[in-house]
Amino acid sequence: MKTVVIHSARDLRIEDRPADAPGRGQVEIRLAAGGICGSDLHYFNHGGFGTVRLKEPMILGHEVSGHVARLGEGVTSLREGDLVAVSPSRPCGHCRFCLEASYNQCLHMRFYGSAMPFPHIQGAFRESLVAEAWQCAPAGDLTPGEAAMAEPLSVALHAVNQAGNLLGKSVLVTGCGPIGILAILAARRAGADRIVASDLTPFTLDMARKAGADETIAAGEDSLSKFTAEKGTFDVLFECSGAEVALRGAVPAMRPGGAIVQLGLGGDMTLPLQAMTAKELCLKGSFRFHEEFFTAVSLMRKRLIDVKPFITQSFFVDDAVEAFTMAGDRTKAMKAQLVFSGT
Amino acid sequence: MKTVVIHSARDLRIEDRPADAPGRGQVEIRLAAGGICGSDLHYFNHGGFGTVRLKEPMILGHEVSGHVARLGEGVTSLREGDLVAVSPSRPCGHCRFCLEASYNQCLHMRFYGSAMPFPHIQGAFRESLVAEAWQCAPAGDLTPGEAAMAEPLSVALHAVNQAGNLLGKSVLVTGCGPIGILAILAARRAGADRIVASDLTPFTLDMARKAGADETIAAGEDSLSKFTAEKGTFDVLFECSGAEVALRGAVPAMRPGGAIVQLGLGGDMTLPLQAMTAKELCLKGSFRFHEEFFTAVSLMRKRLIDVKPFITQSFFVDDAVEAFTMAGDRTKAMKAQLVFSGT
Amino acid sequence: MKTVVIHSARDLRIEDRPADAPGRGQVEIRLAAGGICGSDLHYFNHGGFGTVRLKEPMILGHEVSGHVARLGEGVTSLREGDLVAVSPSRPCGHCRFCLEASYNQCLHMRFYGSAMPFPHIQGAFRESLVAEAWQCAPAGDLTPGEAAMAEPLSVALHAVNQAGNLLGKSVLVTGCGPIGILAILAARRAGADRIVASDLTPFTLDMARKAGADETIAAGEDSLSKFTAEKGTFDVLFECSGAEVALRGAVPAMRPGGAIVQLGLGGDMTLPLQAMTAKELCLKGSFRFHEEFFTAVSLMRKRLIDVKPFITQSFFVDDAVEAFTMAGDRTKAMKAQLVFSGT
Amino acid sequence: MKTVVIHSARDLRIEDRPADAPGRGQVEIRLAAGGICGSDLHYFNHGGFGTVRLKEPMILGHEVSGHVARLGEGVTSLREGDLVAVSPSRPCGHCRFCLEASYNQCLHMRFYGSAMPFPHIQGAFRESLVAEAWQCAPAGDLTPGEAAMAEPLSVALHAVNQAGNLLGKSVLVTGCGPIGILAILAARRAGADRIVASDLTPFTLDMARKAGADETIAAGEDSLSKFTAEKGTFDVLFECSGAEVALRGAVPAMRPGGAIVQLGLGGDMTLPLQAMTAKELCLKGSFRFHEEFFTAVSLMRKRLIDVKPFITQSFFVDDAVEAFTMAGDRTKAMKAQLVFSGT
Repeated sequence: MKTVVIHSARDLRIEDRPADAPGRGQVEIRLAAGGICGSDLHYFNHGGFGTVRLKEPMILGHEVSGHVARLGEGVTSLREGDLVAVSPSRPCGHCRFCLEASYNQCLHMRFYGSAMPFPHIQGAFRESLVAEAWQCAPAGDLTPGEAAMAEPLSVALHAVNQAGNLLGKSVLVTGCGPIGILAILAARRAGADRIVASDLTPFTLDMARKAGADETIAAGEDSLSKFTAEKGTFDVLFECSGAEVALRGAVPAMRPGGAIVQLGLGGDMTLPLQAMTAKELCLKGSFRFHEEFFTAVSLMRKRLIDVKPFITQSFFVDDAVEAFTMAGDRTKAMKAQLVFSGT
Repeated sequence: MKTVVIHSARDLRIEDRPADAPGRGQVEIRLAAGGICGSDLHYFNHGGFGTVRLKEPMILGHEVSGHVARLGEGVTSLREGDLVAVSPSRPCGHCRFCLEASYNQCLHMRFYGSAMPFPHIQGAFRESLVAEAWQCAPAGDLTPGEAAMAEPLSVALHAVNQAGNLLGKSVLVTGCGPIGILAILAARRAGADRIVASDLTPFTLDMARKAGADETIAAGEDSLSKFTAEKGTFDVLFECSGAEVALRGAVPAMRPGGAIVQLGLGGDMTLPLQAMTAKELCLKGSFRFHEEFFTAVSLMRKRLIDVKPFITQSFFVDDAVEAFTMAGDRTKAMKAQLVFSGT
Repeated sequence: MKTVVIHSARDLRIEDRPADAPGRGQVEIRLAAGGICGSDLHYFNHGGFGTVRLKEPMILGHEVSGHVARLGEGVTSLREGDLVAVSPSRPCGHCRFCLEASYNQCLHMRFYGSAMPFPHIQGAFRESLVAEAWQCAPAGDLTPGEAAMAEPLSVALHAVNQAGNLLGKSVLVTGCGPIGILAILAARRAGADRIVASDLTPFTLDMARKAGADETIAAGEDSLSKFTAEKGTFDVLFECSGAEVALRGAVPAMRPGGAIVQLGLGGDMTLPLQAMTAKELCLKGSFRFHEEFFTAVSLMRKRLIDVKPFITQSFFVDDAVEAFTMAGDRTKAMKAQLVFSGT
Repeated sequence: MKTVVIHSARDLRIEDRPADAPGRGQVEIRLAAGGICGSDLHYFNHGGFGTVRLKEPMILGHEVSGHVARLGEGVTSLREGDLVAVSPSRPCGHCRFCLEASYNQCLHMRFYGSAMPFPHIQGAFRESLVAEAWQCAPAGDLTPGEAAMAEPLSVALHAVNQAGNLLGKSVLVTGCGPIGILAILAARRAGADRIVASDLTPFTLDMARKAGADETIAAGEDSLSKFTAEKGTFDVLFECSGAEVALRGAVPAMRPGGAIVQLGLGGDMTLPLQAMTAKELCLKGSFRFHEEFFTAVSLMRKRLIDVKPFITQSFFVDDAVEAFTMAGDRTKAMKAQLVFSGT
């Protein structure tokens, strides 16, 4: 089977590897679509991010869908031919965090396509993928591309769950890449009233409006100044850029007691702690997801969230290098996906 | 001006009364639309409910909209000619509950058209209504009828706020009168995944499907039995019927730790406390609303909630008796409204 | 070994049974102390409660402590000779509720001494008890009697966790049997400010004062009337009596938005739903506990909670019938315990 | 009357000023005790902090108690001669935050002894203080010194309320000045199980142990390393030092999902956002207090919190300069207080 393997920065190869057979409780999936994520791009462009570096070749990919090709022993929840979205979240089930149902904090998480542990956890950009049946959410009449959006959408839904009830709330989204756009969709779905989005490029701001933002702001010095009167405006910020300047700049626009949900993974940031303390802001991290994956698929299947307009490019797997190059261009690409033979 | 006055059960009269002039901070509104609520019907049909009885003639009505006709001194937030939805919630601002911002629990609430205190609080079914500017939410291009739905929609939004974050949750709604229907719309808006609704009549169940319920159930003995496996299914129940049988019947279908939000105002009820305790259910009352009123108008103006299909009848104010008779017919009427001269 | 076996109402026998050997991950405990709980008394006096009836002989008891006599293979967290409190909560670890860490709602719970499932779950009143190492909390220099109080104290701590932050809150406790007394201790430990307790007998009210209640009330018609002004006084009620009259009577004394935590397991109750809804009270069940067990032992070991004054009687296991008779006398007994040979 | 006036850094003077008379709803208080707070010390040592600078002479002080000397018209809640603790929190009651009961965020707060607004808000170190009756909490048989501790204790209680339910939780306190010590007392009162405190000096660590910390740590490089295994230990951090190094150093010791309550007011801080996001920590500011003031007095009156051991020095008001010099010495002074003529 074809696999998409990163060897080092800019050294991405299509390699032929033998397929696995499904064991008890598992299924074999013929991959149909695979979305390229920011972390995939970091491996492709830089060989890693922060302290996480590639130390061996690794199959990339964790946003995937495909058709069930073969059922392992004992699997009754799926049928051959089903289109499924496959969750890349594979917690151990036994560590202290799994025992408290904080699965996304699992000490031994085997999340697809991650170089955090060594040996690395091999990813899901492969024509044939063997997965546990419980990882698979039947996708009904979604397209394979939509089904592959379940993973990043889950990230956004998890962020909303970190924020709590959004009904009628005023929301700011900083950074309108795929996660920012999905945060807009998720916040709208969860009942937010006013949604303002900021980013640097006209393309992403246009996408933000398509996603339902009431207003978009070209990011820059004092770009949020009109929201700072009387100690600030927004109840909730979804910070999706990972940029210190975005987070710092949003603090004066947050109302006292407001919540900042940090999704973007930057490094160290210098923050205005005095203002954050005096306004009693709550800065809360949001990392991956777990049970939200099935919610993501369900809400898409009911057409309560529509991700289609944000899948901007598709490439055959053989053109993966071209796909990765395009995926990083924030003036043209929102979500670029690979198309596999199982489509 | 014409007013709609209840004197005693079945004695509803259109009476001419002098209009008031707006004082400082107030506005005069030419009423356009007024929805007939369940409590209005109780006064009309029975002269009251429970221990609340009519002791003097009372103008009915608290679901109203109209056009601003005159501005009192100092009012700058509104303009003449604006269509506004008028909140009937008028807390005193000084009691212990107002001081904690629990305005709906105000000890001296002057909610339009209520016989709870004596003298009764006169209602808003009158051609000319003088209100505080802060009660008025500009309704933009909503129809007067839609604007008059802000009040019952606020009741439903408040109930969702009592339940907390609904994103991805499984919701049951018992009782599909106007409040039940609006609870479906509100729960959907707030991100609920699965919504099941139950009621007695085909007409209301049809409305529930129009409101977005995934499934409707004809209420009856064991009608929820398919939801009781493994200690139950639903995360949240919005109990909108006020009927003991509905609440009792839903308990086995609630999952452990689930929340029951009680909106329907019945009298004493005999409940299965042992099961409720062992499953650690949370039964929480929801009473009126306050700040949700402005959220209701905003969400309707953005077309994020569409109440139009549920305004099933309109009558000129002179035909109020006919309107009240129709409003109580659950096989034909969802929300019946009066049309006033200010429309 | 001696075991305390209930055959039917009033037929309690001391029987000799063979002891088990500890398997992998298990320990053998020489039992030291065992508290008699309300459910034990129901089996003793009535052969069960509600729909739960004895269908076969059952060893009673779930409030126990003892000394580690033998370590099974692989146990390193305990040492021979340690006094331990043994948690009776044994969830399956695999059902839907265990997977969400709602262990007290486990579908296959094997709680010691329970006739809910059939075959019944045999209890812990036995000279030799084989338990999983993870059930055992080292009790340090607590007395065996204190250690055996960890179980009912856990019930009270779980109830406080259901209520949420109590710091500075005003708390009412209805029913001052062992659970009520421990609820007073737990609420005080959790920072409650004003604590008022009500019950029927001078003995239990005296105990409530010893436990730290600021005020005690002889339960009766209108006994809480002084707390009903301005819609009520108490932020939180711990209802520990299981009596409808206690719960009904407390509603007018609860402030709007207050929380009622129901611990007492009565049957059906007729409740004033209209008042509960209009005041937006929250009635929440509290059932058993899980992780609170280790907190209970830790707080007792640090002398932050002192349960000693409430262990009012101790009997040798051979005098179990006498012990059970005394345990039910609310004019003399708070917590009666059995003393086993391992003390 | 004597007043304690700061003119500029190190220029503190005892000045004679005319006393005011109490108006309607007010009382005159003969001041008894006044605690010296960190912000008082900043004015004394540096003429301000951050962007807050003295622009005119200002009476210092906001931790005060005294005896009621005269009742203004209409005051019935107090009696002449009562010892009262006086809350320095004086919100306007009309701004958007007061209307939501977020009084500590009032846009027009007149907190005693603050140079944030101009003209500055004059403080309470004066022999005669005219205050609103609602600012005064009767202190019963507390000493004046204890009563004057109500203010800083309120700060600590507010921080606990920001953290939520602490029952059984594991708590770290960084910085053991007066606020850190009171945070230990408050956390213990609220049911925390394990409390670890860190600071630089043996004197403050000794005080932390007196306050009930289970363990104290001399702050320094890697001083918390033993708490970092398996992603960390503490559920809650009360950061009371305002030092970046303390906050940064504590992050690896916090367990995923843990809460950091920031009380210390430092300036900008460079924080490990990647780790904070991946562990989903919640960093929440805590600023002043409001309703906690009355809780503070009540808990002290019931001897549920004992602040006496932490009042380490008292000086007559005439020796204010000496007092302020001592108050800043973290090797000898925890809380230094002034004694006024009303004692």
